[in-house]
Amino acid sequence: MIAATPAPPYFAVIFTSTRTEGDHGYAEMAGQMEELASTRDGFLGIESARADNIGLTISYWRDEHAISAWKADVEHLAAQRLGRERWYDTYSVRVAKVERAYDFVSANSV
Amino acid sequence: MIAATPAPPYFAVIFTSTRTEGDHGYAEMAGQMEELASTRDGFLGIESARADNIGLTISYWRDEHAISAWKADVEHLAAQRLGRERWYDTYSVRVAKVERAYDFVSANSV
Repeated sequence: MIAATPAPPYFAVIFTSTRTEGDHGYAEMAGQMEELASTRDGFLGIESARADNIGLTISYWRDEHAISAWKADVEHLAAQRLGRERWYDTYSVRVAKVERAYDFVSANSV
Repeated sequence: MIAATPAPPYFAVIFTSTRTEGDHGYAEMAGQMEELASTRDGFLGIESARADNIGLTISYWRDEHAISAWKADVEHLAAQRLGRERWYDTYSVRVAKVERAYDFVSANSV
């Protein structure tokens, strides 16, 4: 479930959100958007987790062009609009350039 | 719970992990480390969430120097060692420079 990203540099879009009450079609749309993003040129991976009061989704991209193209995707634009109308109370989007990275794998890990 | 970070540029350390079974003192140590990090010069904020199979923690820092100092902190080094010995099956650390950011606040939000 940890995204298998290539060697840096590449880009991360850090999406942090707090939700409104209830689902209102959110889970289904989130799954659809994740699937759609993964088909896009320049998509490198995605990691997502939610606590009671905050959700974090980090998507990784080859370059800024790939990020801009995904942001402007027609289906994604519709989802973004619904997000602002229904699902999100607040959110922050941070676009960051990954400069270095390292991994750990336990000796006990298969 | 969304970190109130200043205008970019600043840095993000994206820590993504998969855990071993059981707690083994993890929750207590994670709380201690978050508290300790927040006292450090250059610390800007932290966001954290865990799903069944993955944990994401993003800490934000003023510059690379602040990140290096926290990585080399003696208490943090001890926690990192325990992490590799006990708590983490795998993890990835990505250091990224946040280049741009924007926020949304719902009109219904207080």
